[in-house]
Order: sequence, then C-alpha cells, then structure tokens
Amino acid sequence: MLRVTGTFLDEISHDIPHQNWGEKEWDKDFRAMKAMGIQKVFLIRCGHKRFCTYPSAVLEKEKGAYRPPVDLVDMFLRLAEKHGLDFYFGTYDSGNAWYRPEVRYDVEKEVDLMRRVVDEAWARYGKSKAFKGWYLSQEIARRNERAQACYKVLGEHCKAFSPDLKIFISPGMLGPKDYNEDMQKRGKTIPLREHEEEWNQIMDYVHSFVDVIAFQDGHLNYEDLPDFLAVNKKLCDRHGIECWTNCESFDRDMPIDFLPIKWEKMLLKMTYAAQVGIKDALTFEFSHFMSPNSVYLAAHHLFDRYCEYHGLPARSSDFAPWKD
Amino acid sequence: MLRVTGTFLDEISHDIPHQNWGEKEWDKDFRAMKAMGIQKVFLIRCGHKRFCTYPSAVLEKEKGAYRPPVDLVDMFLRLAEKHGLDFYFGTYDSGNAWYRPEVRYDVEKEVDLMRRVVDEAWARYGKSKAFKGWYLSQEIARRNERAQACYKVLGEHCKAFSPDLKIFISPGMLGPKDYNEDMQKRGKTIPLREHEEEWNQIMDYVHSFVDVIAFQDGHLNYEDLPDFLAVNKKLCDRHGIECWTNCESFDRDMPIDFLPIKWEKMLLKMTYAAQVGIKDALTFEFSHFMSPNSVYLAAHHLFDRYCEYHGLPARSSDFAPWKD
Amino acid sequence: MLRVTGTFLDEISHDIPHQNWGEKEWDKDFRAMKAMGIQKVFLIRCGHKRFCTYPSAVLEKEKGAYRPPVDLVDMFLRLAEKHGLDFYFGTYDSGNAWYRPEVRYDVEKEVDLMRRVVDEAWARYGKSKAFKGWYLSQEIARRNERAQACYKVLGEHCKAFSPDLKIFISPGMLGPKDYNEDMQKRGKTIPLREHEEEWNQIMDYVHSFVDVIAFQDGHLNYEDLPDFLAVNKKLCDRHGIECWTNCESFDRDMPIDFLPIKWEKMLLKMTYAAQVGIKDALTFEFSHFMSPNSVYLAAHHLFDRYCEYHGLPARSSDFAPWKD
Repeated sequence: MLRVTGTFLDEISHDIPHQNWGEKEWDKDFRAMKAMGIQKVFLIRCGHKRFCTYPSAVLEKEKGAYRPPVDLVDMFLRLAEKHGLDFYFGTYDSGNAWYRPEVRYDVEKEVDLMRRVVDEAWARYGKSKAFKGWYLSQEIARRNERAQACYKVLGEHCKAFSPDLKIFISPGMLGPKDYNEDMQKRGKTIPLREHEEEWNQIMDYVHSFVDVIAFQDGHLNYEDLPDFLAVNKKLCDRHGIECWTNCESFDRDMPIDFLPIKWEKMLLKMTYAAQVGIKDALTFEFSHFMSPNSVYLAAHHLFDRYCEYHGLPARSSDFAPWKD
Repeated sequence: MLRVTGTFLDEISHDIPHQNWGEKEWDKDFRAMKAMGIQKVFLIRCGHKRFCTYPSAVLEKEKGAYRPPVDLVDMFLRLAEKHGLDFYFGTYDSGNAWYRPEVRYDVEKEVDLMRRVVDEAWARYGKSKAFKGWYLSQEIARRNERAQACYKVLGEHCKAFSPDLKIFISPGMLGPKDYNEDMQKRGKTIPLREHEEEWNQIMDYVHSFVDVIAFQDGHLNYEDLPDFLAVNKKLCDRHGIECWTNCESFDRDMPIDFLPIKWEKMLLKMTYAAQVGIKDALTFEFSHFMSPNSVYLAAHHLFDRYCEYHGLPARSSDFAPWKD
Repeated sequence: MLRVTGTFLDEISHDIPHQNWGEKEWDKDFRAMKAMGIQKVFLIRCGHKRFCTYPSAVLEKEKGAYRPPVDLVDMFLRLAEKHGLDFYFGTYDSGNAWYRPEVRYDVEKEVDLMRRVVDEAWARYGKSKAFKGWYLSQEIARRNERAQACYKVLGEHCKAFSPDLKIFISPGMLGPKDYNEDMQKRGKTIPLREHEEEWNQIMDYVHSFVDVIAFQDGHLNYEDLPDFLAVNKKLCDRHGIECWTNCESFDRDMPIDFLPIKWEKMLLKMTYAAQVGIKDALTFEFSHFMSPNSVYLAAHHLFDRYCEYHGLPARSSDFAPWKD
C-alpha cells in the first residue's frame, strides 16, 4: 500500500488558520512526522503577498513585504537536519491571478522577481544539508500559459545552479470541489480526455525540469478518481516524470472549510492511487490535519487510524501534552 | 424536566466532519452517553450515496458502494449490548432530491432498493438483542408525496417482519434556519396553520406504522417554538403517535456550520418541549456536540452544564484522556 | 510596545459559538487574563434581541426576553473584584438595523429602552467596586445619525449619574474585511480623507461624554492600517479623547469565521498602533482567541507567543486542565 512520505508545511497559509506554533511545537511535530513515515517536507510557498517565511531583502524592497518575527526557513532546515527529513523550498506567490487570463499584469516582471527570491534563498540557505529541492508553488489544474512560463523560467534556473535538487509541482484536477478566490466551489469535472490532452501538452513543456508531479486528489468526486489517476500515471510515465499523489488530508465535502478528512475517504483515495501503480504520496498537510499535535483533535484520531492501518507503532497519545 | 434519552450516531455524515474514532473511542463514548442518561442510539443512515456503515452486497452491486474499512453496524450493536443501549437502524439515503419535485427520478426503484437494504441488514444483524427499531431517514419538513410513499413502503415492510420494533422519524419544521443542499439558509417560517394542516395529513398517512415522531427543533426562531411544539404534541396525541423532540445540540445561529450549541439555548428548547407535555428528547447529536470525548471542546462543557442542571454526577473530566 | 490591557467578554454573542463555561471556568479564565496583563473587561452587550446576561425585568416586559440560567453580570462583577479587574457594562443591542437607514424603526423608543436597561443595571450592580464604566455597544464605521443619537442619549445619561465612570466605544474602520448581517464580506476601503472627515464630525459630537475610542483594527488591509491609525490618533488627540486600539485576536482572512489570528498578524497590528503613539489595546476577545482555556487550541499557542514576546512568565501549560 501507498505510504504518505511527504507533507507540505503550510507557511505562508492563505486559507488555513494558523496554529501559532513556536520552535518547540514544530520540533515536536517533525518528530511526529518521522514517526508516521514522512521523509520530505515541502514549504508550500516562501511568501504570499506581503507575508514571508524568512526576512527577504528582495521582497521587502519590491513588495513592501513584512519582516517575519521568526526565520521559518532557517528553523525548518535546522529541524529537518535534526530529524533527518528532506526540505523542499516553495517559490514565492504574489497572489496574482494566474488563473484568470482576463486579469492583466506583467508576468515577466513577476517571474523575474520570483527568480530573484529563489537566488536569495539559495544564497542564504543552500548550504544546508537538508535543502533537497524546489517546489514550484503555482497550482494549475489545466493548461495555463502564464503559470507554465513561470514554471519554465524558475525550473530551468534552479536546475542550472542546483542540478542535483529535485523539482516538484502539485497541480489540481478540475472538479466540483475546486474553490475560487471567494472560497466558492465552482465548476464541473473536466472531461477525462481534455484533462489528458492538456496535461500531455503541459508535460511536454515541463518534463525537462520537473522531476515529480503530485496531483491534488481532492477536487474530483471519488468515483472519478481512478480514471484520472490512471491517466496521470500514464502521462507521467510517458514523459519520464515521477508520478506521486497529493493525498489531501482535509475534507472538502463539509460546510466547514476545512477540517481533517474522514479516514475512510483518505484510505479510499490512497487505495485508488496504489491501484494505478503510484508509490508515494505527499499530503496537504500533516500538521493541521493528521498530526497528534494539531489544534484539530480529529487529526489526532486520523493519525491513529493511519498508523494502525500501516502497522506503525506510533500513537497520538505518545505526543499528548501531559507527557511533555 | 425533559431528559435527553436518545442520540443519533452520525454515520454516514454528509455535513459534520468526522472524528475518526475507532472502536476504543466509540466504546468510551457509549459509556459517556450512558452516564448522561441516554438509552437509545439511532444510526442516522446506514449509507449515503456510495458510502456505507456496513459491507452491503446490495449497495455494492446496485450503487457501486464502497466497502467500509469497519463494519460500524456490527460495532455499534456490540457496544450497545455491552452498555445496555437500544440501537435503531437508519435507512439508506441515496442523496436523491426528495425535496425538489422538479428533479425526477425513479422513486419506486429507489424505495425498492432501500427495502432490500433493510432486508439485508435484518438478515445480518436482526438477531442482536440491542436491535430495537428502525429510523426512517428522510427528513421532510412538510407534505412530500415521494418521501411519504417511501415511509409507507419501508414502514409497513419493517412492521410486517419485526412487529415488536419501533419506528421513528425525525422531520423538520420549516423555518429560517433550514439549509438547502448548498448550505444556504433558505425560506421563512411556515405559517403555523399550514404546518398543522400538512402534518395532520401526514400523520393520517403514517400513524399505522410510525411509533414516534421527534421533530427537529432547530429550524425555527426560538420565539416561535412553543406554538409549533404544542401543535406537534396535539397532532401526535390525536394520531396515537408518541411525540418526542429532537433537541438539536449544534448551533444554527453562528457563521461556523456547525459547533456545539450554547447551553442556554438548549435549555430553552427543552423547557418549551416540557411545557407542552413532551417527555423525551433525542438529540442530533451527542458525540460531536455534547460528549466529553468530542473533538469540539465546547461539547465537554455542554456535557457538564447538562449534567449539573439535571443533578447527574458525571463530569467531562471523568473522561479526560490523561485518565485513560 | 503596546500591551493588551483589556478584553471584551463576548456575552451575548451573536457570531462566535459559545464555550459553555460555568463559573469555575470563568474564574480560571479571569486568572489567565490577569497573567497576560489584562486589567479591564468589557461586557460586549448586556443583551441581544431576546437573550440577556442578567435577569432584566425591563427586557422581559418590553422585549419578551428570556431569563438567563445564570446572572452573568453578577458573576463577572464578583470575579472582577476577586481578580482585581475593572468591569465595563455593555449596553443592550436589540439587533435593529442601525446601519441601514432604509430600515425604519422607532429609534427614540429604542434608545429610551436602552436607557432604562442602563438604569436597571446601575440599580442592580452599581454598588460593585469593580463596576468602572460603560461600553456603548453600537459598532459604527462611519457617520450614522441614529447610532450617534443613541450614543449621546446614553452617554450623557450615564455621565449624569456616574460622572467618575469612563465610557468606551469601539467602532470599525470601513474596509474589505467588514461583514454584513449575512456574514458576507462587503465593501471597500473607505478613502482615508472621508474616514477623517466623518470621524472628525463624529468626535465633535461625542467628545463630551466618550472618554475612550478603540477602533477595531481588523477590517482594513494590513498595508492601509498605519495611515488610518495615524488619523485616529490625531483626531482623538484633537478632541481630548483617549485613543486605544481594538487589536482583534481572530482571523478575518480565513474561510472559517472565526478562529484565532496568526501571531505575526497580531504583532504587526500592535506594532503599527504603537508607532503612532497608541499606548493601550483591548482585544476582541481573549476567552475564545487568546486564552489558555479556549476551546480553540490555537488560542493557547497565541497566548504563549504573546507572553514570550512581552517577557511575561505565564505559559498556557500553567492552565492545562490536567493540572487542575
């Protein structure tokens, strides 16, 4: 059975309320990740609009960004080294409307800024032994000229100076549980053939610098997932890209956006991915939705169900705060 | 004063996020129910769309249903026996639009499927000493030809082979806190006279097989509740049906859908029900909204307020996980 | 740096789900407030529509109000005395549409009722040593004839019989994170000049009886906050009114309305307020969003981050229930 071997770190989040953890809490959570079999952590984005995960001279100058009270990139890298996890750096997200072609902005300038942020981060943190790759943070679900151009510039740039580092993307699959900027569910399931055609083209375009694609598995109805996963795997294989799944651990079916997913649904999605030959999952994301340290207590139970299922000895009670 | 003597078990839920409990957690929660005076548990539905509470050959074949990782009906029955609770089995809910006459589908076929699921469940679980009745899971708020026909077929069918088992329904009362399928509050309070006329007719139709009606008490404004409860009691008395109330323990007045209700509101609703002579309440539902084991901590305090008020010795701290 | 020295007590709440605390829990929470440096508590409103914080003969007679199970005003005053906190009494809120001039109602009658509630409360509770002031509960964001008239009647009335007591208001600043009655975000940032002109006029009108204005800091985009805070401080200074900030501790940027704010954002807002010379903050509100006793666990961590930042020795673990 497929295992969850990676998780996003949802900093800077734009839609999940913050847990307000300090280093002590993150240290404990990296320990919990390790106990569940996680090997890789992905900073979802190094900055969002004016908020940053590290003090970025580039973003302060160009975007009027705020200096964060803690250098999270430094902290995550230290904790990753301590716990033997690999760290992937997520690129900057300006909050611009990549997805709405009718909104015009200077894409070239934007991508150039993102490139300079990558350079800055590499200069600051590239020496860390835990720094193992890049995550290109635009989440497209279908062909998107602007985002693809962005992938290409950043991807080729990163490959040029860090050829041994892996590059991940984690796109969506267009379905009824996709959200627009106002958090309204929109749209319908894209016809499978269109999904295949568009992603065949996208992969033609990105395969030379993208190492791994982990499609988000939460937008589709469950019954449509097997066919789409099969297409994803086939297309990735054809293009020499590793195919993972992003097995989302939050529930998109509920009026509260978002709380931990029901274990049965997560198991179903992992089973489908395993059936088409996918070997690895990352999840969005452990710390809120699967962690024994989460502020959402249903996550503690999800951790237990996952560990029981996989025969892992860890239990959420191992991390209970009264044992600290 | 009225007591809460029954609770739904919200499996399969379609609008309340899952707590991800395993048997150990459910066992503890049945113990907590007992401590609060609960005697009856109602499986809200045995299946919803493709998700099931037990491995149903019928639903797998006819609906492509998923086999659940745990047989919850078996587990609930064992726990009900262990803790001396009565179990009521909720009928299948296909997710079809019973409430929107403009949406056409083959009602007869649907009801026939539901009947076969009932048969299957009875064959699998009918021997359990805890299996004490049926809950017809369609939640109508006013006259509804399709749902009533469904009640009749299922109700008479169940009565024929299990005449000693009781049959419950738990309809709504149309008010401003009713939600549509997109979780938007809709509608206005139905005029009291219309409510009375329609329910008089409905009860004429169902009284020969429905033993108990427990109207949901959350859709109306509080100030309208006394008059509607009085009508409900009068109509039930006239038709020889037991009149309970479904004293909802979640709060419909808040932007978060849904968290535990304020104790004062729950007490107010129970007081109104007691004033018209209603003797028993069930609640939707204990495990998320009133339980000392809930992932929502306000539920722990609601449990304490309820127990204090009724002079019960139980306290949420008795169930604190650090005492496990 | 600015300190949070006051908090609202969100009784009666109309948009934050209740924690269902009894006196023991409130006692513990007042202790936590004290540990964080809070000196003043503000009852956000003594009643809302038919719900009341104390048994009000006036509201029972005039509004059909419900008698609450606990006299919260009495309890809060006793706890305030015990813990050495100052208590401010929030005026009644009928739920009328102060903000929508097109909705007509008898404002004079409404204000007269509010005045009688104030008299009743003063007669019942005015002897308490902890009773230190009044909070006028209408939350306007811009010029509003009806609410201002209400402020004037209540404010002058309170000043006449309790000249030593202070009067607070806590208006908004019109921005994109304002909510309408249906909990939809509405509107745009008011032009700074309009904000200044309108509040200059409002302060002309209220300065003789309003001692302190604490503008809510959550409606605006973060980047607009410094200019607005500077205007607020300048206008307050000009009118001889103390200028505080209401540094909201809930997050308005998330799809869940509402959970605790990210510490970084709260710190940013406090920093901006300090930069324009504001010395004190109150917050909406401690008990849900910053408290080590909150049902929202992210609040516990926010308490820790706040205390760490200010060099306070208190930690959320001091209040852990397993230490009770």
